[in-house]
Amino acid sequence: MPLNLNEYLKQNTARLDQWLDRLLPSVETPPAKIHEAMRYSVFAGGKRLRPTLVIAAGELFNAPEAELLPTACALEMIHTYSLIHDDLPAMDNDTLRRGRPTNHVVYGEAMAILAGDALLTQAFIALSGYATVNEARKVRVIAEVAQAAGTVRALIGGQVLDMQHEGDLTVTGAQLEEIHRAKTGALIRCAIRVGAIIGCASENELAALTEYSEKAGLAFQVADDVLDATATSEALGKTAGKDAAVQKATYTALYGVEDARQRAQQLCDEALAALERIERDTESLSALARFIIARQS
Amino acid sequence: MPLNLNEYLKQNTARLDQWLDRLLPSVETPPAKIHEAMRYSVFAGGKRLRPTLVIAAGELFNAPEAELLPTACALEMIHTYSLIHDDLPAMDNDTLRRGRPTNHVVYGEAMAILAGDALLTQAFIALSGYATVNEARKVRVIAEVAQAAGTVRALIGGQVLDMQHEGDLTVTGAQLEEIHRAKTGALIRCAIRVGAIIGCASENELAALTEYSEKAGLAFQVADDVLDATATSEALGKTAGKDAAVQKATYTALYGVEDARQRAQQLCDEALAALERIERDTESLSALARFIIARQS
Repeated sequence: MPLNLNEYLKQNTARLDQWLDRLLPSVETPPAKIHEAMRYSVFAGGKRLRPTLVIAAGELFNAPEAELLPTACALEMIHTYSLIHDDLPAMDNDTLRRGRPTNHVVYGEAMAILAGDALLTQAFIALSGYATVNEARKVRVIAEVAQAAGTVRALIGGQVLDMQHEGDLTVTGAQLEEIHRAKTGALIRCAIRVGAIIGCASENELAALTEYSEKAGLAFQVADDVLDATATSEALGKTAGKDAAVQKATYTALYGVEDARQRAQQLCDEALAALERIERDTESLSALARFIIARQS
Repeated sequence: MPLNLNEYLKQNTARLDQWLDRLLPSVETPPAKIHEAMRYSVFAGGKRLRPTLVIAAGELFNAPEAELLPTACALEMIHTYSLIHDDLPAMDNDTLRRGRPTNHVVYGEAMAILAGDALLTQAFIALSGYATVNEARKVRVIAEVAQAAGTVRALIGGQVLDMQHEGDLTVTGAQLEEIHRAKTGALIRCAIRVGAIIGCASENELAALTEYSEKAGLAFQVADDVLDATATSEALGKTAGKDAAVQKATYTALYGVEDARQRAQQLCDEALAALERIERDTESLSALARFIIARQS
């Protein structure tokens, strides 16, 4: 039976939202305001791509839900914290995200900084707090996540490079790829890897999935550049055309929209090819790779 | 032989600085600027009180250095991240810290936000990255640290309460204590507890040390309020008299300097009394409690 991706995304989002609700402090817990601010951005209707990748990778190996879901939620918390901080006036100064005013617009700058800090911290509370029969595996997962969120070929480092290259029209394709590998690639790679690690994937399976995740992560960013250049703010739920306005280096700026689209397709094909090295039902991961380059927001 | 506290602090600081240097990305690692910014604040000559408490608690039980020192350094990274973010223009807007310009004054607001984020993340890289024979113990340590850095009766929650009560002249002594237990108490408590946990302390020993840490943490904050009200900026290395200027609730504002000094002494005595329930050489911890209320900066 072929996978209905929309249904698959919807079901996983429902499951993830339940777990996120359980793993975040309630708005009744003092100090209430910060929990409200954290939840405002977490439940703003994101695509839940990263946590869905954790689940999809884990389910290849029948990984236990009780380990998979807290890990998936932790990655979504980290992704959300990075968006809150990136949107701050001192950073990208963005007022629209996922179709709503950004966190600092609603809660003020100080609270937005703290809400981001708190989501990053809450991720590690979630990652260290679930029951497992294998504590060493849990430590390995925590280490993978911490590294992917760090500065060296990782999330924060990517944001630094991105900032440093703003307005720099001499950025090469190789530099652009380095920025993207760090800024969006590291967390997508991590999502797939921790899912596989929790599922006790073999070294060969982990290597194939890592290659899938690296190609899919890059494809995601190329598709993002195309969307920023071609879609409306309404469709995106965030400010469109922003990259060009601040002279940000993008694939579309470097190669044009048509070549960028082809590059995304090529990366998607390479991601699918990596999946063929795994003798399991990888249909959800194939569908997710195709979704990554075909999405409209 | 009685403990020479100055010597003890100096030796531990030297050891901690070596480990911190090892655990932080070098300034040669790209993106270099953020590693420079992280190191600027970590090596700004802090007292290293929290990591010294980890070491002192661990050494009661001959805990292995290879676990104790990365954990101690992680707490110092978290403490430093919280100072960088607290000093931001959107928060306390402070320009002087540990006798030097604050991080955002030197590196700009965007980089200071990211350097704080990166130190928090690096703490979990350090906590998950060392070798141990007991992975379950490591997970327990990570969970303790994450919770102490979080929002619920913990570091970030304390900063939220502190912000919310600024200019509020109706704060009661009980509310003030709640703020301090969260803002400074949680991390000091955590420092002692993780040291003891790594040392495999018994439940009774852990309970006695937890009580010590709670009293010492509160004493630390009362002494801090006294210093802010009585010392010069030069002696403190940060802006003195700031609390009164922004009408911050403090012990000295509530009870006056003399009563606050007596309260600090009483809390110190209670911390020392808790140590007597432990049949080990607790001289370093006694000396640290006395130092906490007698320090000049």
